[in-house]
Amino acid sequence: MNIYFACSITGGRQDELVYQKLVAALQSDGHHVPTALLASPDVMPLEGVVSAEDVYARDVRWITDCDFLLAEVSTPSHGVGYEIGYALALGKRVLCLYRKGRKVSKMILGNPHPKLSVHNYEDPDQAVQLLTTYLQHITETEAG
Amino acid sequence: MNIYFACSITGGRQDELVYQKLVAALQSDGHHVPTALLASPDVMPLEGVVSAEDVYARDVRWITDCDFLLAEVSTPSHGVGYEIGYALALGKRVLCLYRKGRKVSKMILGNPHPKLSVHNYEDPDQAVQLLTTYLQHITETEAG
Repeated sequence: MNIYFACSITGGRQDELVYQKLVAALQSDGHHVPTALLASPDVMPLEGVVSAEDVYARDVRWITDCDFLLAEVSTPSHGVGYEIGYALALGKRVLCLYRKGRKVSKMILGNPHPKLSVHNYEDPDQAVQLLTTYLQHITETEAG
Repeated sequence: MNIYFACSITGGRQDELVYQKLVAALQSDGHHVPTALLASPDVMPLEGVVSAEDVYARDVRWITDCDFLLAEVSTPSHGVGYEIGYALALGKRVLCLYRKGRKVSKMILGNPHPKLSVHNYEDPDQAVQLLTTYLQHITETEAG
């Protein structure tokens, strides 16, 4: 599958380790992750050389083309919030994961959209496990 | 006018003073601001007693009914990012203001939507001035 991974960039990178584990799990399963670089510590200097207009156009195109959007929402981010809304408006499935104990916006926690799933995790391994279970579930649903 | 004011709640309240000045300026001009309470220091305990589902349904209804959405985007927030996208998808005008020097997502800075305006300010008084100028401009545009 073609999976858009969304995470905080300008809002803070304290959850970078889990971003990397999630993206690595997707890639080792053979999925294409156009935003894989966003999980890496190299993202800030690289994103700095691209214009805001180009980033917006690129990300919107990637969301339009993706099969589903995975968002790590432990760290608040305008961009990730915008992308979740954008993907849902296009009818894409969205999975939001966050570390247990973090405060998450009620615009996500209280959103009844049928294509949106929200789960919390205790540690990065459990985050990967939740993602794997989710992918198995949607693959079975779509195959069935 | 009926104006939806969006600001960070769970993401941090360090810009609360400017939230209050913006809402006070709108109210003293005779505008209706359904989210006025979100600018107040009392918002956290009050929002705590409302379910996430009720907050989501309430905010989406308020956005649908508003004439325009004003967002203070100095502090990252999934909810505010989602609301900006939601309002633009409905064809609402959106004005984003942020304190000079803060990092703002490229999904906002690079967004070419014709109904979106983004400006930065040096201090709360300048934020109010930018808002006042914007309101005069859209009132004249609509009258003309």
